[in-house]
Amino acid sequence: MTSPNDPTLCSFIPVDAASDFPIQNLPYGVFSTSALPAPRIGVAIGDYVLDLWELEQDCRLVVGDLGVFSAPTLNPFMALGPKLWTRTRARISELLRHDNPELRDNPTLRERALVPMAQAKLHLPIAVAGYTDFYSSKEHATNVGIMFRGKDNALQPNWLHMPIAYNGRASTVVVSGTRVRRPRGQLKPPNGELPGFAPCKRLDFELEMGVVIGQASAMGGMLTEAQAEEMIFGFVLLNDWSARDIQQWEYVPLGPFQGKAFATSISPWVVTREALEPFRLSGPKQDPAPLPYLRQAKPNNYDLELEVGLRAASMKRPLRICHTNFKYMYWSSVQQLVHHAACGCAMNVGDLLGSGTISGPEKSQRGSLLEISWNGTEPIELEDGITRTFLEDNDSLVMRGWCQGDGYRIGFGEVEGTILPAE
Amino acid sequence: MTSPNDPTLCSFIPVDAASDFPIQNLPYGVFSTSALPAPRIGVAIGDYVLDLWELEQDCRLVVGDLGVFSAPTLNPFMALGPKLWTRTRARISELLRHDNPELRDNPTLRERALVPMAQAKLHLPIAVAGYTDFYSSKEHATNVGIMFRGKDNALQPNWLHMPIAYNGRASTVVVSGTRVRRPRGQLKPPNGELPGFAPCKRLDFELEMGVVIGQASAMGGMLTEAQAEEMIFGFVLLNDWSARDIQQWEYVPLGPFQGKAFATSISPWVVTREALEPFRLSGPKQDPAPLPYLRQAKPNNYDLELEVGLRAASMKRPLRICHTNFKYMYWSSVQQLVHHAACGCAMNVGDLLGSGTISGPEKSQRGSLLEISWNGTEPIELEDGITRTFLEDNDSLVMRGWCQGDGYRIGFGEVEGTILPAE
Repeated sequence: MTSPNDPTLCSFIPVDAASDFPIQNLPYGVFSTSALPAPRIGVAIGDYVLDLWELEQDCRLVVGDLGVFSAPTLNPFMALGPKLWTRTRARISELLRHDNPELRDNPTLRERALVPMAQAKLHLPIAVAGYTDFYSSKEHATNVGIMFRGKDNALQPNWLHMPIAYNGRASTVVVSGTRVRRPRGQLKPPNGELPGFAPCKRLDFELEMGVVIGQASAMGGMLTEAQAEEMIFGFVLLNDWSARDIQQWEYVPLGPFQGKAFATSISPWVVTREALEPFRLSGPKQDPAPLPYLRQAKPNNYDLELEVGLRAASMKRPLRICHTNFKYMYWSSVQQLVHHAACGCAMNVGDLLGSGTISGPEKSQRGSLLEISWNGTEPIELEDGITRTFLEDNDSLVMRGWCQGDGYRIGFGEVEGTILPAE
Repeated sequence: MTSPNDPTLCSFIPVDAASDFPIQNLPYGVFSTSALPAPRIGVAIGDYVLDLWELEQDCRLVVGDLGVFSAPTLNPFMALGPKLWTRTRARISELLRHDNPELRDNPTLRERALVPMAQAKLHLPIAVAGYTDFYSSKEHATNVGIMFRGKDNALQPNWLHMPIAYNGRASTVVVSGTRVRRPRGQLKPPNGELPGFAPCKRLDFELEMGVVIGQASAMGGMLTEAQAEEMIFGFVLLNDWSARDIQQWEYVPLGPFQGKAFATSISPWVVTREALEPFRLSGPKQDPAPLPYLRQAKPNNYDLELEVGLRAASMKRPLRICHTNFKYMYWSSVQQLVHHAACGCAMNVGDLLGSGTISGPEKSQRGSLLEISWNGTEPIELEDGITRTFLEDNDSLVMRGWCQGDGYRIGFGEVEGTILPAE
């Protein structure tokens, strides 16, 4: 059988070369329509959503009648495990091929199962069990370190030895398009005696990828590189909204709490690990060599381009303010997951692991306004007279990501969020 | 109608004055029996568990046939809200009164609904949505601060202005009796050049109370003191197991991660906020006055005695190594919850908020071995020749808590955990 990743595959559904969703991608999401408002599982193909619930009812899918595609989240499907992920993706690929008449020549089923993307409302694709945010870009950690501690102490002593992380707040992970209310919190002006409670003045984004964990692991156990990889269902774009001033005052000694808890936005489409397979590469050389439990036999990074656009309310289009690549990450997602479980921490279906802000070696590759405006000292110009250090009310922030193949791209769509004024 | 808190109430079920579970308590838990292995909701009364599922099937409870008591966690019942919590507790109290023949004189129903505690297996009572760990005892924060930063900088500048917290790991919250595997992790010896990966050498407990949140709040909103109080369903004993050496190396700058993620133990019985009502008192005077959003009109602390026992494998009984009181907490549970939501963070049914280690002003009131052994420099003697600085393999740690009334106590039972050797 042809691999679903074969670049020569094409679908009977027309897909533009610039589309994020060719037949080689097949990302999973949760959608609803006004005709059928129950959220259910779909796959993006070109400008359509393929309704897996309809295919399941018609017994067209390998998982039979387990009902996992009528669920409002991907969790029940993910819980079936990597063998069924592979078989299901292969079967969907087969159904969508240009030379397969099964769906192509069945107008009744096509009508039921292919929903124009414009008619689909996209929902949060997973029930987030736990949300963990890593800090694994050396360029990002170095930039932040230089700003706050100077060049000589930029990286903390532990940073090169383990993927540093904190537990984030799962309850406020939202899907792209959800508007984000500017948070209020305790702020302490640099020269002020006492903190006040006021709207955040230094509201920021962080460009990240999110890893979606599709299998559980036992409390008290550890994971090998291969086991960790098998547990990864897929990836999303992730915007780790950050209130820099709230964070600055609260974070010693227990880390970020309210400064990160008001919202985290993810893209609606989960691109499978399998679809990214052709774009694997090795990450930066790790020196010192990681401890044995963190060593990798395989290249676990991905050549995945990322860009961020910022649009003030008066602007017609977002201006690109960052263009970087996931490949720069010092610690890979597999290393992050191995480290996460290493103390005996149980992992769950639906856990979401933020990569940490993805910056790169160039100035144009900085993945947060904190870095782009160098802690507010270097405003950027968006359009004539419109400058920014941090996000203002009604600003809209859009992230996009894609792996560029030969004549096609494996894309993530976008994660967008617009800032509402504090209440 | 008599209040379920009336100290003169008594049940037809004999309850010893030293029992944790008189008719004035009625804590909720999840249990199963070998005869009926499905976990279901029960209430502790003396040496019995009252099976609410049986009473529900018999239409004896105010919530009718909603099925919340056949659930394997308290979450569906909690989601019904505080008015139904109050009515249900009053109804259970009524059913158990010495002068009510309804259950007392119905041998068939008694046989079905009253399970001897010794035959009940107790489960984790809630599905933990999010777990947050605060740091709200001034004595504890001061002790730790003196150890690591000296007397003059013991409290961080933010500590007196807000209840400091971090997000913990919900997936490893376990019920009392679950054995705890000594975690492995990165350790950096004080004089060593490089970290190694090895079993934790400084394994500790932290004596805490856990607040169980029974109602959700909206993302983007804030809570008043009264709203926050209404969302609190009840309290449990909580042991925040801590790997001090793992934590020490990892926690800068993003806070504790692996050092706390391997296990958190809670007591099986959730004592309701209502049962603790007679034991309310004001906490320590807060100076400086908190910001307006954190001010309290009511006394929100509780006079709740707490003790910790430690038993080495060769000892017959645990030795009490700490006896303190929940009343010493500087920030109350209500203030913690108000602060948690203040940035717009959505709260969920089943959220668990750890109070932070509960120490008191006296040396005998220190709530962790870190403080009791003063960072390992002052070993304690448990029995002839058995000394401890931190926990050793096969040690068993038991926490108990109770509010002492006149002739009765509102008790929490215990939370116990035994340390297994690292794998």
